[in-house]
Amino acid sequence: MRTAGRHFLQIPGPSTVPDRILRAIDMPTIDHRGPAFAAVGKRALDGMKTIFKTDSYVFIYPASGTGAWEAALVNALSPGDKVLMYETGHFATLWCELAERVGLQPELIESDWRAGADPDRIEERLRADKANDIKAVCVVHNETSTGSVSPVSAIRRAIDAAGHPALFMVDTISSLASIDYRHDDWGVDITVGGSQKGLMLPPGLSFNAVSEKAMAASKKATTSISYWSWDAMVGPNKNGYFPYTPATNMLYGLNEAIDMLNEEGLENVFARHTRHGEATRTAVRAWDLEVLCNRQGHESGVLTAVMMPDGHSADAFRAKTLAHFDLSLGNGLSKIADKVFRIGHLGDFNDLTLMAALSGVEMGLDLAGVPYRAGGAQAAMNQLKDTATAKTAE
Amino acid sequence: MRTAGRHFLQIPGPSTVPDRILRAIDMPTIDHRGPAFAAVGKRALDGMKTIFKTDSYVFIYPASGTGAWEAALVNALSPGDKVLMYETGHFATLWCELAERVGLQPELIESDWRAGADPDRIEERLRADKANDIKAVCVVHNETSTGSVSPVSAIRRAIDAAGHPALFMVDTISSLASIDYRHDDWGVDITVGGSQKGLMLPPGLSFNAVSEKAMAASKKATTSISYWSWDAMVGPNKNGYFPYTPATNMLYGLNEAIDMLNEEGLENVFARHTRHGEATRTAVRAWDLEVLCNRQGHESGVLTAVMMPDGHSADAFRAKTLAHFDLSLGNGLSKIADKVFRIGHLGDFNDLTLMAALSGVEMGLDLAGVPYRAGGAQAAMNQLKDTATAKTAE
Amino acid sequence: MRTAGRHFLQIPGPSTVPDRILRAIDMPTIDHRGPAFAAVGKRALDGMKTIFKTDSYVFIYPASGTGAWEAALVNALSPGDKVLMYETGHFATLWCELAERVGLQPELIESDWRAGADPDRIEERLRADKANDIKAVCVVHNETSTGSVSPVSAIRRAIDAAGHPALFMVDTISSLASIDYRHDDWGVDITVGGSQKGLMLPPGLSFNAVSEKAMAASKKATTSISYWSWDAMVGPNKNGYFPYTPATNMLYGLNEAIDMLNEEGLENVFARHTRHGEATRTAVRAWDLEVLCNRQGHESGVLTAVMMPDGHSADAFRAKTLAHFDLSLGNGLSKIADKVFRIGHLGDFNDLTLMAALSGVEMGLDLAGVPYRAGGAQAAMNQLKDTATAKTAE
Amino acid sequence: MRTAGRHFLQIPGPSTVPDRILRAIDMPTIDHRGPAFAAVGKRALDGMKTIFKTDSYVFIYPASGTGAWEAALVNALSPGDKVLMYETGHFATLWCELAERVGLQPELIESDWRAGADPDRIEERLRADKANDIKAVCVVHNETSTGSVSPVSAIRRAIDAAGHPALFMVDTISSLASIDYRHDDWGVDITVGGSQKGLMLPPGLSFNAVSEKAMAASKKATTSISYWSWDAMVGPNKNGYFPYTPATNMLYGLNEAIDMLNEEGLENVFARHTRHGEATRTAVRAWDLEVLCNRQGHESGVLTAVMMPDGHSADAFRAKTLAHFDLSLGNGLSKIADKVFRIGHLGDFNDLTLMAALSGVEMGLDLAGVPYRAGGAQAAMNQLKDTATAKTAE
Repeated sequence: MRTAGRHFLQIPGPSTVPDRILRAIDMPTIDHRGPAFAAVGKRALDGMKTIFKTDSYVFIYPASGTGAWEAALVNALSPGDKVLMYETGHFATLWCELAERVGLQPELIESDWRAGADPDRIEERLRADKANDIKAVCVVHNETSTGSVSPVSAIRRAIDAAGHPALFMVDTISSLASIDYRHDDWGVDITVGGSQKGLMLPPGLSFNAVSEKAMAASKKATTSISYWSWDAMVGPNKNGYFPYTPATNMLYGLNEAIDMLNEEGLENVFARHTRHGEATRTAVRAWDLEVLCNRQGHESGVLTAVMMPDGHSADAFRAKTLAHFDLSLGNGLSKIADKVFRIGHLGDFNDLTLMAALSGVEMGLDLAGVPYRAGGAQAAMNQLKDTATAKTAE
Repeated sequence: MRTAGRHFLQIPGPSTVPDRILRAIDMPTIDHRGPAFAAVGKRALDGMKTIFKTDSYVFIYPASGTGAWEAALVNALSPGDKVLMYETGHFATLWCELAERVGLQPELIESDWRAGADPDRIEERLRADKANDIKAVCVVHNETSTGSVSPVSAIRRAIDAAGHPALFMVDTISSLASIDYRHDDWGVDITVGGSQKGLMLPPGLSFNAVSEKAMAASKKATTSISYWSWDAMVGPNKNGYFPYTPATNMLYGLNEAIDMLNEEGLENVFARHTRHGEATRTAVRAWDLEVLCNRQGHESGVLTAVMMPDGHSADAFRAKTLAHFDLSLGNGLSKIADKVFRIGHLGDFNDLTLMAALSGVEMGLDLAGVPYRAGGAQAAMNQLKDTATAKTAE
Repeated sequence: MRTAGRHFLQIPGPSTVPDRILRAIDMPTIDHRGPAFAAVGKRALDGMKTIFKTDSYVFIYPASGTGAWEAALVNALSPGDKVLMYETGHFATLWCELAERVGLQPELIESDWRAGADPDRIEERLRADKANDIKAVCVVHNETSTGSVSPVSAIRRAIDAAGHPALFMVDTISSLASIDYRHDDWGVDITVGGSQKGLMLPPGLSFNAVSEKAMAASKKATTSISYWSWDAMVGPNKNGYFPYTPATNMLYGLNEAIDMLNEEGLENVFARHTRHGEATRTAVRAWDLEVLCNRQGHESGVLTAVMMPDGHSADAFRAKTLAHFDLSLGNGLSKIADKVFRIGHLGDFNDLTLMAALSGVEMGLDLAGVPYRAGGAQAAMNQLKDTATAKTAE
Repeated sequence: MRTAGRHFLQIPGPSTVPDRILRAIDMPTIDHRGPAFAAVGKRALDGMKTIFKTDSYVFIYPASGTGAWEAALVNALSPGDKVLMYETGHFATLWCELAERVGLQPELIESDWRAGADPDRIEERLRADKANDIKAVCVVHNETSTGSVSPVSAIRRAIDAAGHPALFMVDTISSLASIDYRHDDWGVDITVGGSQKGLMLPPGLSFNAVSEKAMAASKKATTSISYWSWDAMVGPNKNGYFPYTPATNMLYGLNEAIDMLNEEGLENVFARHTRHGEATRTAVRAWDLEVLCNRQGHESGVLTAVMMPDGHSADAFRAKTLAHFDLSLGNGLSKIADKVFRIGHLGDFNDLTLMAALSGVEMGLDLAGVPYRAGGAQAAMNQLKDTATAKTAE
């Protein structure tokens, strides 16, 4: 039987792709070596600099975010290099495993998955590394599996305080264009990004923003690379071209996305995400449930992970919301599998879509027999109402 | 400033056009006299018979619903003919004015706009028409301006009880494919339909379903007609063609819409609308507001018109919901202008979209300073939850 | 079996709809009474004035071109009014029949369908109408069935020379935005247009451009009208709205079309059509076939009708080109049925598409066993080559 | 100035993406971990097996073809492994350079770029490799830079004749779904494919088809890999899922492409390409120009590379066809830069599009002052006409 009405894709990415972007992608593919393409390519490359807030390098890969993770590591580092990573959650752990698979020696600062990275622990570890064996510090900005945000600029200060020369790499796959981020100002060397979250595109593009320091490091790195090579990109990129066939239609969509973000204004985009995170946490507390992130100031505006009461299956609950209300929620991953569910409130998103999602959650809790206090949606509504502003003239 | 997220188009039509239909319309136009077109045309003409539930004639106009209103009258009637109409609300009144403009003599049974047509009053009037001067009885099935539904089969019985030979014409522009309707079983002679409500298309197509009796009447009618002529359609339609250039791309969309309605099942579609109407009225009552339709059994599953407390402007309230929550609600028309607002819950629609709309209404009431009791959205949620069913396997 | 590759729709309309326009139509329908719609409506209404080259009125109907034909007649004229029409071909004849059906008394100046209207014959007839019984002169600018163009400004001069007060109505359904046209400069009172030819849209919209004189006439006209009423349009149009539900998505496409025409420049658009008409006639002559239009200066840049050698079926030939080469050509209509085929070279069209079409015609002639001399496509190619200009920087 | 009409993208890929595929891609992204996705993923994975003609493994990468090249090498081989490659042209050379960059020791059998790989030379080299140091033989099926096809099954026989255990890897990026190919029957171990040629998609997906032998080899290979890892794919793929976020919307398009290929029938698709290659070469010879591929039986049905007369610039010529006729042709690459141009006749393509392209080439030769004999397009047309078949009922 057909399910009527619009699907609510409230996982923490891919986010809902707006019509303007889908329609931009739905235009004829052109010659990627011809003059018309150069304009498309330059617009995308330059536009992404405004999103990363960098004046140095941006590279665009026809690949998932996982590919850009790999690109960051293999361009800048050599086999056997030590990297310091921080276990903010599932994705930080996956990045660590990836580092190992590509021949590095990652060291993971363990945590309970309920907060972003702690700058003090990073500083402490770096201070202990008298020999400067650690070649890079890798942090996930917004941990998609937990809804905790790491304080990137404070970590930069921690690295500086330790006087350590390691490269600083940040994964912004689920924070870029949703949470305030400043590649240059915050002294990040390599920022990893993806298309399918704050950028509002389908999955299939990913990014590296790269500082001059990282670029210099890459000249000396000895990892065998080809597809991910920055070096091969630099020359063609200057004129808007790519060393191998780019994902042309996705670039159409990317250019539309950059326009849309600029039309709204990045500061407004960030404030919107913050406000929706707050309203969501208000709902969770009103339901008498617990938000996974328990460090004040680390809560995410992109997603909220909610802990399931003991003895109740988060996945059974999610199956209810999907089957009954056509609402997709994010699942708990690895060690929190079936123990949390995640509400995505990112990308092309607004108050009423949040109310729809929270209503679906509240009804699903009931249908799944999860103990909860009614009124979470109502509590969020009160908060949204009190903070609402007119977006257009009345 | 760009408004983020999806617009909520909760006027009582045009309803939200689903992606499948928009994408079907977004295909190359073909030769409307070629063999490939015949298949498109036949599929549309035959498919619409299953929607109207008729085995006789269906005609498709490249026109708004207003055009199909005119078509119904001018094909079957002659200048000066008397027609009995029923003032269920604004649209019934407009149809009456149209009848006058095209040279007929309409007589309007007046009402307070708070219910559908009363079969007894129609029967009474027809019984008084000993000379059979009245050539047609015209009723609006779902009055889009008020949210009241007229009992079409009871009106048929009333006409029969009066033993009157008048043609029976029904406007289903906003009920077709949303509320149970049976052209043949209910003995309707001419049914008027439009594309942009339950059929989920953009505006631009409209329909006449026509009984043999109406077709016979049209042979004797003397109104000067051309564009609307059924007679000119019959021949070409047999092979899937049209007498003048059809709106080919809209027909692509129509065929997709018919498929979607059949995939869901018309009975399920009707039940869905009924349930959403009930939940909406529950919300209205919980807000301590009044539903315009006050006749039990006449309440619409397509839209709910809500009366504004005295001294408060419905339009100022609607401006708030649009500017703050990107929610379009329907306005009050003519004599109830600024006194009611209308919530559309029709077409490609589901529980969470209703929760979004009701949340937007509740927040808007607050922002507009309208006296209301909080909890309407919550009340609707409780009702939806208690009546929810799984649409897909859990 | 699927037919690979792009279909070549070389009928004289609907023309091929460009991707930009299809994608514009493929956007969500909005509230036609809301503020966002006003901008869409005003842009369309104002934009069409630049296409018709008029400062007076433009009306947009959700209807085929046939509807706009009817609108022109019924707004401005009264039952029994005499109208002078000119039999340039099938469509002029259809318009004449329509005039009769809507209660007028058309008089048709007969012709052999091989030229546009002759101003001298019109002047002569008007001079004979001492009583000014003729209320309107109706001419088809580009006769789609024959490929002959009527000299509109010369006909205006003829009417003036006769000192006759009749309204001047011109059908530009297949010429608008393809052949030079100037509603105001040429003193036309009502211009009829359609969406699916030079405007590059799917069928479903049609137009009346209306002079003050025609508007004044409409105030006195007594034909019963409703859907087509200019009077009902004028008020709402002032603010970008319409008296009944407009075909919103088609208006999105119309606005895109107007942009595209302005980007190319109307003068360039006209020159392009002229050049393609010339190249096509060169091909026809090289094939040793005859162009239907035999009046120099009347040949169309929109389409070329080609006469079939005696004893050969144009329709059998067209069936060959469709089945073998996925090429749709126009058929001969009514009295030239099966005797001519028509090559459309209008709308979003270019040199290589013309070469494709002419190659398909040449191959089809061979496959259908039609006597012809090889080399028509080659001859057209030579001409195109000699007159080609760079559209972009080399 | 806007360029009117459709662009002719006659480079040898990306090929023109048909509307059905673009529209499939233009649908909402869904949860890549949800049940609805599993159906999408399985359909794509199973469908691609029918295209590669394999019963073993197919892996789908969100990446350009270059990525799938790398995947083939790094999964199956270890650092320092010797691979035998064959210099059929630019792309074979690039693959060889890639092999070197990822740590292998490629050996390139040199050639003049005017034919596909010679099985005898491969056999000879393998016979000389008594120690079985060569771990893989890598051949490009259709060399996109030259238009020469390597005889894959004969090379398989050559490897067998030499009794050599090397893996056999074939690049079918520009041949898959255009030229007959049989992964299992021809005993290929790893086939590399891409989305943007015969599969008619935009660029952004690439493929490995993998034999059991190659899969076994990958278990022992020691290259550090992550993104490209087959091993990580196998498990999730079983249920239609992927180890990292897949390019969901491209998979929608892929499923549509597979349907379209099956609707036409792969044998018909292959025959169509062969016939268009023949007609193109007929045109080239008629122009008195030389086809780059000079080995009979190696000529490609996908593209034709044409040698420019001495002293004339292929790129200046291509600039003419682009600026004057909106026709994109492929350029000569590396050692044949500016010396050849390439006509793509692949993917969703038909007779009239070929005639358009050849007409554009012929006119461009003239405009660019290249010595040529007129009549190439005419010669191709004669050949197409003599071999044309009806695709639909007449």
